[in-house]
Amino acid sequence: MLDAHAGVLDEIRQALASRSWYSRYPESPSPRVYGETAAADGLAAHEAHLDTAYAGLSGQPTDGTFVGSEVSPYGPTLGVTYPALDLDAGLAAARAAMPAWRDAGPQVRAAVCVEIVDRINKRSFEIANAVMHTSGQPFVMSFQAGGPHAQDRAIEAVAAGLVEQERVPASVVWEKPGRDREGKPAPTRMQKDYRLVPRGVALVIGCNTFPTWNAYPGIFASLVTGNAVVVKPHPRAVLPLAISVEVAREVLTEAGFDPALVQLAAEADGQGLAKTLAERDELAIIDYTGGPTFGAWLEESAAAHGKLVYTEKAGLNSIVVDSTDDLRGMLGNLAFSLTLYSGQMCTAPQNIYVPEGGVDTDEGHLSFDEFGDRLAGAVGRLTGDDAKAVELLGATVNDQVRDNADSLASIAQDADGRVVLDSRRVTHPAYADAVVRAPGLVAVDVAREDVYTQECFGPVGFLIRTASTEQSLAQLADTVREHGAMTAAVYSTDESVLDAARDAAAEGGVALSENLTGQIFVNQTAAFSDFHGTGANPAANSAYTDAAFVANRFRVITSRRHV
Amino acid sequence: MLDAHAGVLDEIRQALASRSWYSRYPESPSPRVYGETAAADGLAAHEAHLDTAYAGLSGQPTDGTFVGSEVSPYGPTLGVTYPALDLDAGLAAARAAMPAWRDAGPQVRAAVCVEIVDRINKRSFEIANAVMHTSGQPFVMSFQAGGPHAQDRAIEAVAAGLVEQERVPASVVWEKPGRDREGKPAPTRMQKDYRLVPRGVALVIGCNTFPTWNAYPGIFASLVTGNAVVVKPHPRAVLPLAISVEVAREVLTEAGFDPALVQLAAEADGQGLAKTLAERDELAIIDYTGGPTFGAWLEESAAAHGKLVYTEKAGLNSIVVDSTDDLRGMLGNLAFSLTLYSGQMCTAPQNIYVPEGGVDTDEGHLSFDEFGDRLAGAVGRLTGDDAKAVELLGATVNDQVRDNADSLASIAQDADGRVVLDSRRVTHPAYADAVVRAPGLVAVDVAREDVYTQECFGPVGFLIRTASTEQSLAQLADTVREHGAMTAAVYSTDESVLDAARDAAAEGGVALSENLTGQIFVNQTAAFSDFHGTGANPAANSAYTDAAFVANRFRVITSRRHV
Repeated sequence: MLDAHAGVLDEIRQALASRSWYSRYPESPSPRVYGETAAADGLAAHEAHLDTAYAGLSGQPTDGTFVGSEVSPYGPTLGVTYPALDLDAGLAAARAAMPAWRDAGPQVRAAVCVEIVDRINKRSFEIANAVMHTSGQPFVMSFQAGGPHAQDRAIEAVAAGLVEQERVPASVVWEKPGRDREGKPAPTRMQKDYRLVPRGVALVIGCNTFPTWNAYPGIFASLVTGNAVVVKPHPRAVLPLAISVEVAREVLTEAGFDPALVQLAAEADGQGLAKTLAERDELAIIDYTGGPTFGAWLEESAAAHGKLVYTEKAGLNSIVVDSTDDLRGMLGNLAFSLTLYSGQMCTAPQNIYVPEGGVDTDEGHLSFDEFGDRLAGAVGRLTGDDAKAVELLGATVNDQVRDNADSLASIAQDADGRVVLDSRRVTHPAYADAVVRAPGLVAVDVAREDVYTQECFGPVGFLIRTASTEQSLAQLADTVREHGAMTAAVYSTDESVLDAARDAAAEGGVALSENLTGQIFVNQTAAFSDFHGTGANPAANSAYTDAAFVANRFRVITSRRHV
Repeated sequence: MLDAHAGVLDEIRQALASRSWYSRYPESPSPRVYGETAAADGLAAHEAHLDTAYAGLSGQPTDGTFVGSEVSPYGPTLGVTYPALDLDAGLAAARAAMPAWRDAGPQVRAAVCVEIVDRINKRSFEIANAVMHTSGQPFVMSFQAGGPHAQDRAIEAVAAGLVEQERVPASVVWEKPGRDREGKPAPTRMQKDYRLVPRGVALVIGCNTFPTWNAYPGIFASLVTGNAVVVKPHPRAVLPLAISVEVAREVLTEAGFDPALVQLAAEADGQGLAKTLAERDELAIIDYTGGPTFGAWLEESAAAHGKLVYTEKAGLNSIVVDSTDDLRGMLGNLAFSLTLYSGQMCTAPQNIYVPEGGVDTDEGHLSFDEFGDRLAGAVGRLTGDDAKAVELLGATVNDQVRDNADSLASIAQDADGRVVLDSRRVTHPAYADAVVRAPGLVAVDVAREDVYTQECFGPVGFLIRTASTEQSLAQLADTVREHGAMTAAVYSTDESVLDAARDAAAEGGVALSENLTGQIFVNQTAAFSDFHGTGANPAANSAYTDAAFVANRFRVITSRRHV
């Protein structure tokens, strides 16, 4: 595999260093790219899993019980069950598998990881169906975000871990100049061997909405640096990660390594397996995506026990609207960002700051209320046709999201605000049981921080009336620094406002998108170029994928001797 | 400064990448290197500080009180007092100083840091006297470890922080291939600017025994990555860091930056300022060297609040003796390692594992007891002459060390062991009040873990009788993994034993020195080549200086826009 993938390793090292565009896996689900029968084959493979005990993990230690309670946000019960992992035996197997993996070295590990992701890519349609029917994402998004985009993030983590390890030479001769008693040169020479060792067993805790995209970076960052990985999926989004773990175990076995390097720890809903695992002494690294309460517990409790903890939790994604020379482009872009997956992306905008004096545009000046109405109109046009809307909105993933979507009138009433656009119920033509909601908008005054400084996950946006763009930017910086955010954006035709926005983003510690009016959206980041998260605000303590995400997952042990 | 030091930055980038020998500052205190009057001038500068209020920090915000209670381990009271830092004003000043420092960029910051260290180097003799009369180190060691070796570690941290930041390009154009509706190439192009931002204010908590050597890496790692630094010295070792902070503030001011980027927070003995500072919200990074109790509190409490915590605490430095073809060299080397600074180095050996069957040597087979007696003899020869011995031993730093030195007989009695060599009281010819102790050795059975699995800081070594070298290595790995160690060494003529020792060291997570018989000692590490600590065992959660030590001290904020 090292020979087969040597060229790939060169390519991804360079891509990571340049941070320009790089993608290994085509994002188009077109038959011309993935093959004429790929879509049908993937669907058939998905359907073959339904109502069965998952067979692809039979090598894992288990007590013989099976767990699984996935129900598609589109309605159907999946009926898949997974062998429960015997934790004592599983963690012992993970530890026992590590020395050979450690001694294989970073290049071999990286090549094996690339092979795993290549094989995962071949199952992209199968995984797309699994992602769709666990997260509620629409199909094309399930394919792209759950498939090639997630796979590119996996390769990015492999690249980051590889180059980080390669910065330490395997061996050097150290020669210190010196002279003997007669004054002749007599250097002291030592050989120093640097051995890379893993930290221990890594735990990756998956989330409901992006089962693969948010899990792969942690899985592959830990794996490429020599650690064994236990994957604990969200109990309602197991299948995409079960397939991924199956593939990893197959490839590891073929490459002569112990498949116990990657294991799936499925659980029943409410079992609390993440906490049980996080408290195990064998666990040295934890990657987590999910709600802020458990994330904060991990950051406090597990970190206090010396475990490395990488979290992505929740935040207040924020947009400052000042002015634009492309109103139509701006509204279309914003409407799409609000609509995609019903705002159930950790990167979807929530807080839109607009000055009370309104917004200058290429179509004339708009008052605060006119801007809100225009944005509502753009959302309405994008989501007005049910059959087309569901291809963007997908289905709501849980009751909290549905409650949030139902709450706009009461939020507006409590906050002396105005429902600019209510969240429309959309009927899915194919899935009658799916609860599909289009985005709604509530206008509130900037003083009502009680309303907009908590995450309202799902199809809810706040139009926040500020005294000025200056206040909008200050509020963005302050709220993000205090409460966190994954994304921020600004619209302005004024270079000084853009400069101030960059400062506000730096101050708040959040990445900034400026004047997006085309087919790039604030909620999307590109592997190898855009960092996902910054680690500089409470929304996430790390970023996909910078050096800090990988550098501490291994340690260096030197042995030195005279030569 | 950037122009003046551009060549140096190139040099240190390359040195860090190659990890071969590199030193910027000559380690010899010879007049030929540092100038004919350097030693006398440094002594005079030191003496000018005594019994005065330290004037070099007059720009710091203070409430007007002065603190200071340093007493030389050699006897004299220093009588220096330092302006107490007004914490509210000092931390506010530190924060206010950061944006300009942040925006200066990594190269400028690195050049300024190099200039600071160059200027510190010019005060090496003054600092050597300050280190000697706070730590109790002998003079030449105070010069080397407190001066050029510490300065080389500072430069290493600058290099590590510099290259880590330079891995992120300042700006890229990202071009994603695509086609327009007519099928013609229509790439999406975006400019992405990556802005490096510091985490916040960094706290460096110094220790008594190596005030500069253990503080500089944290200070310069934080500074070069854009953070402001508050230096909180050990209350009994303030002067060396006061001088260092004074120099840093001078250079920062000359370079047009706010001197509040580096501030000294001196305290009276027992004031508990480290805890007060560690709990401040403004603090984002903490570097600590010192006792394990407070270190563990920091790791738990501060880490739980999202602060980055780098610690070096205590451990069981271990040596496995199997066999040698240079008995004289081995004994001399071991005796020196035990003797230097009376074992008060965090890297000094404590646990020496010897098989009950004895040791094969080039002078024939030695039984366990014979080996112990030969080692005792070597220590005795090295420390037998008081006047010469004090130049290696220095003075004991505190009562705990003196108590440990007095405890050999009771340890032996409690543990059914044998005092192989008692810790001899040495009279310092120049300082009658100095308590100087030569190393002692107690032989105990491997079963008596109660005795040797805790750190017994100072001139105490344990000769641990094992069933075999195999057991010695297993015990090394187990005790280090559980209790930590900064160093380990092995002596063997058998390649398979050396291989097994490398595995045991990897297992325990500790660096290994093999068959040292000359002028390289297990307790010494070379900047740019040897990592100090591994971060892989409980003695220290980090290493000087790897990527993990610097990569998380800054974050990256992207701003992107179409071009």
